[in-house]
Amino acid sequence: MPVLSLSQTVQAIASGERSAAEVLETCIARIEATDARVNAFTGTRFDAARAQAAQVDARRARGEALGPLAGVPFAVKNLFDIAGEVTLAGSKVNRSRPPATDDAVLVQRLQAAGAVLVGSLNMDEFAYGFTTENTHYGPTRNPHNLDCTAGGSSGGSGAAVAAGQVPLTLGSDTNGSIRVPSSFCGIWGLKPTFGRLSRRGSFPFVHSIDHLGPFADDLPGLALAYDALQGPDPLDPGCFATALEPTTGSLAQGVEGLRVGVLGGYFEAMATPAAREAVALAADALGAHTAVQRGVEWPDAAAARAAAFIVTASEGGQLHMDSLRTRAEDHEPLSVDRLIAGALQPAAWYVRAQRFRRRYRDQVNALFRDWDVLIAPATPLAAPAIGSEWVYINGQRLPCRPSIGLLTQPVSFSGCPVVTAPLWPGGTGGLPIGVQLIAAPWREDLVLRAGWALAQSGVAQVKETSL
Amino acid sequence: MPVLSLSQTVQAIASGERSAAEVLETCIARIEATDARVNAFTGTRFDAARAQAAQVDARRARGEALGPLAGVPFAVKNLFDIAGEVTLAGSKVNRSRPPATDDAVLVQRLQAAGAVLVGSLNMDEFAYGFTTENTHYGPTRNPHNLDCTAGGSSGGSGAAVAAGQVPLTLGSDTNGSIRVPSSFCGIWGLKPTFGRLSRRGSFPFVHSIDHLGPFADDLPGLALAYDALQGPDPLDPGCFATALEPTTGSLAQGVEGLRVGVLGGYFEAMATPAAREAVALAADALGAHTAVQRGVEWPDAAAARAAAFIVTASEGGQLHMDSLRTRAEDHEPLSVDRLIAGALQPAAWYVRAQRFRRRYRDQVNALFRDWDVLIAPATPLAAPAIGSEWVYINGQRLPCRPSIGLLTQPVSFSGCPVVTAPLWPGGTGGLPIGVQLIAAPWREDLVLRAGWALAQSGVAQVKETSL
Repeated sequence: MPVLSLSQTVQAIASGERSAAEVLETCIARIEATDARVNAFTGTRFDAARAQAAQVDARRARGEALGPLAGVPFAVKNLFDIAGEVTLAGSKVNRSRPPATDDAVLVQRLQAAGAVLVGSLNMDEFAYGFTTENTHYGPTRNPHNLDCTAGGSSGGSGAAVAAGQVPLTLGSDTNGSIRVPSSFCGIWGLKPTFGRLSRRGSFPFVHSIDHLGPFADDLPGLALAYDALQGPDPLDPGCFATALEPTTGSLAQGVEGLRVGVLGGYFEAMATPAAREAVALAADALGAHTAVQRGVEWPDAAAARAAAFIVTASEGGQLHMDSLRTRAEDHEPLSVDRLIAGALQPAAWYVRAQRFRRRYRDQVNALFRDWDVLIAPATPLAAPAIGSEWVYINGQRLPCRPSIGLLTQPVSFSGCPVVTAPLWPGGTGGLPIGVQLIAAPWREDLVLRAGWALAQSGVAQVKETSL
Repeated sequence: MPVLSLSQTVQAIASGERSAAEVLETCIARIEATDARVNAFTGTRFDAARAQAAQVDARRARGEALGPLAGVPFAVKNLFDIAGEVTLAGSKVNRSRPPATDDAVLVQRLQAAGAVLVGSLNMDEFAYGFTTENTHYGPTRNPHNLDCTAGGSSGGSGAAVAAGQVPLTLGSDTNGSIRVPSSFCGIWGLKPTFGRLSRRGSFPFVHSIDHLGPFADDLPGLALAYDALQGPDPLDPGCFATALEPTTGSLAQGVEGLRVGVLGGYFEAMATPAAREAVALAADALGAHTAVQRGVEWPDAAAARAAAFIVTASEGGQLHMDSLRTRAEDHEPLSVDRLIAGALQPAAWYVRAQRFRRRYRDQVNALFRDWDVLIAPATPLAAPAIGSEWVYINGQRLPCRPSIGLLTQPVSFSGCPVVTAPLWPGGTGGLPIGVQLIAAPWREDLVLRAGWALAQSGVAQVKETSL
């Protein structure tokens, strides 16, 4: 049977062309055939998934209404609570915690929409990294080239979709952790507006910047998943969403008349030629439908990145003070020093970073008086080899791991929603580079429409791997 | 002529019994007769005030409508911008700043209501203190006993009203700076809900805790002033108020049926017998009208105070980093070390304090499901002598200056509105002690009603001084 994408899966199950059980078994077989090489999964629950799939098929047999994601297999970054399992958040330290008593809110919502949970996915420890080089659970490998990183911190979530293991995953994004794996793995990802989706039942990293969101292997599927995830959560004080604002129906509106801008300055200077080519491909495709202007100036991105680093390290460090004091040796060697240093930074730096953020956010939001969608590369380059210490960007030698977030970090610090679209420029050895489609806060609909235009033009697509 | 209180002044001018010019000259004469001893004022603008008062009288002569505070002389803590003057905020450092181009929003609003600005008032440097022992501008003295502190940091605002210099002043309150001078000077003060009044055009201290508010010499006048001050300010991102919610008319509703509780635990343990007597007097007076229950438990006040100290020092220190680096010797000796230490605290402390605050605020707000008004002393004791290093509270020797805020700091950290009522217990050498009347956020009306009940009972009153 041909592998179906997320929205094809929904249609095939709804029409009876495939059963949920068949779809699930195809996924399980794919996971079993590939995951020893990819290392996306840290836990599976195939029997529980089979029971859920059987329920979907039984409902269909009884002629009952099916949810919008009925029978869609999905998996989640292992910082989402799954009832009865220990929420690892990529760490060894968390193994001693009690199992979660409930599923995370977003897991509940996908299940309520009929989706079938098959397992949990690898990540950088405590979400502090861009490469999913996890010393405890091994690195997740890029399905398009197993020597390369899948990106991080939601590397398992990106790789599982790219490898065709599941069409839908959930991840988190603080400084780029949804957009980077989307970019490196060549799939669709959505980092919603800060505060849009409930974080209840997920293990935090940086309270004041954390976002949760979906990955999918086609754009309409991403919108379907997002619509199932969104809506207010009165029990999550960090969820500012008011009412459900469905986007799925808006895709057909196209991009005609939208004011599209391509970010220049920092977002060009910090991008390799391949990343700039990815943006040019996207801009040309959108330009066939609407006016696209190059060289739009974004406010002080370098300062925003510095401020995001300070806030990240301070809040991350504070969160883990106890284990840093008592069992630092059980922490990830790649991030433990940053956590300790972050907790010890002067408070004045943190306060200044948050004060900067307020002005910065106002400046960024003001841009959207003139623009509906802004575009920029998601990463400065395609996926580097696992273990790389250095990268070269326009002749500058830069430390590899932090530099992967050069172009995502300033955008998330403002809180805007971003769809990452999979582009395929030349000069990358066949690897993808994602393009960020950025809109004003609460306008996920606009970036999903822009993503759909890129998908329909064929320029953005999810490609099969040789796995 | 007898000295009139604020609401009497409004009526006398509206009825034509007094002219605004007469009222103003009485105030000017009183300032000139007393301020060499009290040291409440750091600047006066009598000629400008005379012009404003003449305008009020001219409007009246023409039969035009007068504002609700027409002809009321007022003065403001010198952290409020006054167009053409340098905003000192109690400092020497700020003398080199350019003059303000506009009046602060709250100054504008009082003037729009017809009030007449006569000058600016002394304070602790940068609002960081509870005693207005200002090394640059001299200490403000308590009008009821010139050897004693007027409280701080809005000491000039408290003393000017208590001394009969003006019936209305403005101050700011971060950890107690309106409630402490109200308590020590025996006048009425209102610290509104955090975010209720615009802070635009005032010199900040701690962005995430600063409040502005009025002092008055009678309760109806306090409500009149508050109603003139409130309302949204779209240009102040820290002003969360939505619409004007006038309170003046609600005073007549009384307190019958309100659920009144007296805070126990920490708020008794940290109060001298005189402060507890002040609360008992208030509770008995309210108990004549409605049920009053003793011993109500407030959430972790000691932890809240510690967290408030951390947030205060961090944000305050960050704000003054430049001058602390380059001209620390020009800072107030009593607070400069705290500012430097605050800026250097580990960021993890600040992050933890703000995270604690979120939970704490929810716990405090939950109290108001059961209570309409909670009462507690405003200060642990009556005004100590200027220069005191130590105070004794229930046998404990404690450092004087910070301990003055023991009972205010936990309350403002939650953001609740508080009216401070002037009570006169025994054993204080004739000095007053204020009582905090505390309500749920946005319920200023309830604490003003409770204050009015205390005023009508005669137990809370503003007394004349022997100056």
